Amino acid sequence: MYRSHRNGELRLTDANKEVTLCGWVQKSRDLGGMTFVDLRDRYGITQLVFNTETNEELCKQARSLGREYVIQISGIVKERSSKNANIPTGDIEIEITKLDILNESKTPPFTIEDKTDGGDELRMKYRYLDLRRNPVKENLILRHKIGLATRNFMNNLEFLEIETPFLIKSTPEGARDFVVPSRMNGGQFYALPQSPQTFKQLLMVSGYDRYFQIVKCFRDEDLRADRQPEFTQIDCEMAFVEQEDILQTFEGLIKNLFAEVLKVELPEVERMTYADAMKNYGSDKPDIRFGMKFNYITELVKGKDFKIFDEAEDIIAITVKGGNSLTRKQIDKITDYVKTPQVGAKGLIYCRVNEDGSYKSSVDKFYNQEELAKWVDTCNAKPGDLIMVLSGDTTKVQSQMNDLRLHMGDMMELRDGKVFAPLWVLDFPLLEWDEDSERFHAMHHPFTSPKKEDFELLNTNPGAVRANAYDLVINGVEIGGGSIRIHDKEVQSRMFDLLGFTKEEAETQFGFLMNAFEYGAPPHGGIAFGFDRICSIFGGSESIRDYIAFPKNNSGRDVMIDAPANVDEAQLEELGLKFKNMNIS
Amino acid sequence: MYRSHRNGELRLTDANKEVTLCGWVQKSRDLGGMTFVDLRDRYGITQLVFNTETNEELCKQARSLGREYVIQISGIVKERSSKNANIPTGDIEIEITKLDILNESKTPPFTIEDKTDGGDELRMKYRYLDLRRNPVKENLILRHKIGLATRNFMNNLEFLEIETPFLIKSTPEGARDFVVPSRMNGGQFYALPQSPQTFKQLLMVSGYDRYFQIVKCFRDEDLRADRQPEFTQIDCEMAFVEQEDILQTFEGLIKNLFAEVLKVELPEVERMTYADAMKNYGSDKPDIRFGMKFNYITELVKGKDFKIFDEAEDIIAITVKGGNSLTRKQIDKITDYVKTPQVGAKGLIYCRVNEDGSYKSSVDKFYNQEELAKWVDTCNAKPGDLIMVLSGDTTKVQSQMNDLRLHMGDMMELRDGKVFAPLWVLDFPLLEWDEDSERFHAMHHPFTSPKKEDFELLNTNPGAVRANAYDLVINGVEIGGGSIRIHDKEVQSRMFDLLGFTKEEAETQFGFLMNAFEYGAPPHGGIAFGFDRICSIFGGSESIRDYIAFPKNNSGRDVMIDAPANVDEAQLEELGLKFKNMNIS
Repeated sequence: MYRSHRNGELRLTDANKEVTLCGWVQKSRDLGGMTFVDLRDRYGITQLVFNTETNEELCKQARSLGREYVIQISGIVKERSSKNANIPTGDIEIEITKLDILNESKTPPFTIEDKTDGGDELRMKYRYLDLRRNPVKENLILRHKIGLATRNFMNNLEFLEIETPFLIKSTPEGARDFVVPSRMNGGQFYALPQSPQTFKQLLMVSGYDRYFQIVKCFRDEDLRADRQPEFTQIDCEMAFVEQEDILQTFEGLIKNLFAEVLKVELPEVERMTYADAMKNYGSDKPDIRFGMKFNYITELVKGKDFKIFDEAEDIIAITVKGGNSLTRKQIDKITDYVKTPQVGAKGLIYCRVNEDGSYKSSVDKFYNQEELAKWVDTCNAKPGDLIMVLSGDTTKVQSQMNDLRLHMGDMMELRDGKVFAPLWVLDFPLLEWDEDSERFHAMHHPFTSPKKEDFELLNTNPGAVRANAYDLVINGVEIGGGSIRIHDKEVQSRMFDLLGFTKEEAETQFGFLMNAFEYGAPPHGGIAFGFDRICSIFGGSESIRDYIAFPKNNSGRDVMIDAPANVDEAQLEELGLKFKNMNIS
Repeated sequence: MYRSHRNGELRLTDANKEVTLCGWVQKSRDLGGMTFVDLRDRYGITQLVFNTETNEELCKQARSLGREYVIQISGIVKERSSKNANIPTGDIEIEITKLDILNESKTPPFTIEDKTDGGDELRMKYRYLDLRRNPVKENLILRHKIGLATRNFMNNLEFLEIETPFLIKSTPEGARDFVVPSRMNGGQFYALPQSPQTFKQLLMVSGYDRYFQIVKCFRDEDLRADRQPEFTQIDCEMAFVEQEDILQTFEGLIKNLFAEVLKVELPEVERMTYADAMKNYGSDKPDIRFGMKFNYITELVKGKDFKIFDEAEDIIAITVKGGNSLTRKQIDKITDYVKTPQVGAKGLIYCRVNEDGSYKSSVDKFYNQEELAKWVDTCNAKPGDLIMVLSGDTTKVQSQMNDLRLHMGDMMELRDGKVFAPLWVLDFPLLEWDEDSERFHAMHHPFTSPKKEDFELLNTNPGAVRANAYDLVINGVEIGGGSIRIHDKEVQSRMFDLLGFTKEEAETQFGFLMNAFEYGAPPHGGIAFGFDRICSIFGGSESIRDYIAFPKNNSGRDVMIDAPANVDEAQLEELGLKFKNMNIS
């Protein structure tokens, strides 16, 4: 036993107790006759006091302590003369009788404070020091809590957590696999799973009608911001269910997590079709914490000699409540924003709705007050509001307006991190056309079932077929998605046809699953949540990296351990491998 | 909603309810006017009855059902005329009003029964069908329960579950790593972790003083029986602790698991030094459910002209209680067993202790009754017992006697699967001498701390240094092991010297950990349990494979999905890899 208490627990009621504490030296102040040391551990901070008059030797020792030294002390709990209301132990301090240095520390390359002076790269290299900081620690504690609450919730619903294998088989569909050369099976490779999809479907065939797993998955993608080559999923599947059963079960999970971990009562989960989401928000994951729904004013504004509108496929307007308070300069800046390459609009048209009932638009040349009144009416704008208009090809302008809407939501402070607006997006298209390969791809994956009422369309207009597929979106972030799977051989075979698989290709890649389906596959469906993403939403952060103990950087490197790295020639030899371009190796 | 109830839940109190059930056809009996179908799901079996008189069409349909068809039925719960006391639903049956076939099934390649007619290989290939069988299902449910109980216990002790990365760096120490070529970092490899050892030590440096994780680990070893290339660990680490703290904490875990999952109160965990374990049981993981401790009769039996004993370094005897009941034929068979290559003894000597107080030994030529009386006395044998003796080089004869002791334990039915005898084995040697490389290896790993009282020996007799290392053994099976780690730079550097590391090698392989240790490493230690192994001990089975949903065979293959497999040329191209021997590829 190195300690009798932790650094967060002593109170005034402990006064005069003799205690032993351990921890790191957070800071030390030398006030002449007295030396004060803040001792830190995972649980909090306790103030230590060394007095020259009572023990000069000890005081001298205390002055030699550097930041982040690991020490063990014994002493008596005393009431402080000047209390610190900011920390739970602020009423007491420890009068030290014994000090042992358990380990020294070099001066850390950045300060171990809530706001640190360390840059991103430095903190990644010394991740083990960054992990000492309170905000990072709180994130990992949050993650632990969400994981455990998930498991207990699922267990209460009789879901079984079943581990699926990591060394599996590569399939060319979907994203790129990480592969693992097999030494015992020379010339062959395992693949690391992108998800346990096929295994959880096999478990349904096996009769485990409620499965879940919190599990690492792997994707060898070029890393966009905030993607990690390894990430964690809450993976779930149920048998003998329809879409509604899944929606209700997992609404339950998410509501429970919010209640248990954040003490937040989540509002009813709204529902919206994919078609409506695209039409009204230009996104399949709309942030519905705020309005600014799209108004299509196309018919209203055409034929007034304004060429830009006349040539556009669609003209979309949003109403920014109270937006008339924006200055010309601010609107110019917003215009610059929509013209950036990542948004890609040609320009921004606006109409102020003045308090006196008059309108002032950026296209007054083409539209008189009467005409603008129709805009205002359609957009349900009120005095003090601002109407913003973009135009162009429908899909493009929808996407641009989505960007603008979110931008204005931020600007008008309508995206409060403490407000949570959950939403099911339903009826995703089954297929999407890929221009490059000139064929359909499965939007979700090849096992997603088409809606029964759209079966006919499979032959006449496959692109219009809707799937029994759903995403759960919170605050504009997709935190999970899934589908009801195909369990009928005929439908599955038709699906492979549509996706351009030959019988042989389907057999090689998914033969074991197709075979399993010959032996009594129940109707089933499921969902997978991005666990890192859920943690970041709960923590109110944009970045999943903050919720991963040892993340990789944007090149997929762990700069702390310096991985990936070269391996021994001998090891490659054993695997029968060599590099094509010897310059690389 | 496909069903109103599950197949395990209906009782007599539900009589006359209208219900809808789903499941698989377990079996069907056609009794002329009536057809009975046993409907199975994860939760149990319900008997369905189809009556020709009331609905001929339905009955005809029922007769067409094959084994493992997936069906949905509606009907009325009725009291059975002939009840089945063996199943919880045995008092009722369902009088069917509606039958839907949800999916057909080919005839399974083996019977889906508790005792199946399927061989090992066939069941591996059709694992998804094997998983339908009750015993396999019970194993996976047990695994789920142990995992959840572990997590809740650890959480209650404020341990945090923190995920460590899977794509890490290869280290040549220890077993062989699986490696993962990096596409984005051409020519370099990640390695899959053999354990999160270094990361959990980093977490201690980071101040997370109570960490655990249930996590997959990977070892590319030639697979002995019951080893898997991927396996699961309960990995734990604590800071500011001494060995005693660890022992008590994890005794608590194991006791809690037994109590919660098996409703078994585990006895006090006994403790034994490694030296005593080797001396008294010839094993570092003795099964202490039964006695038969070793008696060293070396001094007693030498110098009586019996050459075999005279030339032996040690002569060891065990007493088999009631063993005098063994026939000559049985003893001959045991002699054959000790002479098998895997045991390797030259022969077996025995001495019967007759009920009349006389002795009958296989070496009566050399030892008279008086001399045998001394054996009997030393071995504390009583009338009706049998003394068995092996001789030879000390370490060899210890190992052989360990085999014989376990063999006799089985034979005398002293190894009851329902009895659990837990044991801490303590004070393992720090180092072991490797004849091949003519240097010391770390017995546990290079971060294990030597016992303080043996520090001196590091210079004079390193092989005799004991470590702060411990294993938890239940019924002769090692279920976990760990150590107090080195947190002192000087000691660590001395350790690397002893292991024959140059400064550069230590730096390349463990530099990041050594660096971390410069910034305030607390005293710490931990333990890792084999999760698969714990499950098999709890389930009373010898094989971990029975507790893994999708195990690999002894060549590391998943024969169900046929992995590992060849990958696309294009994929190798992207990785810049090719095979050395084109015949392989």
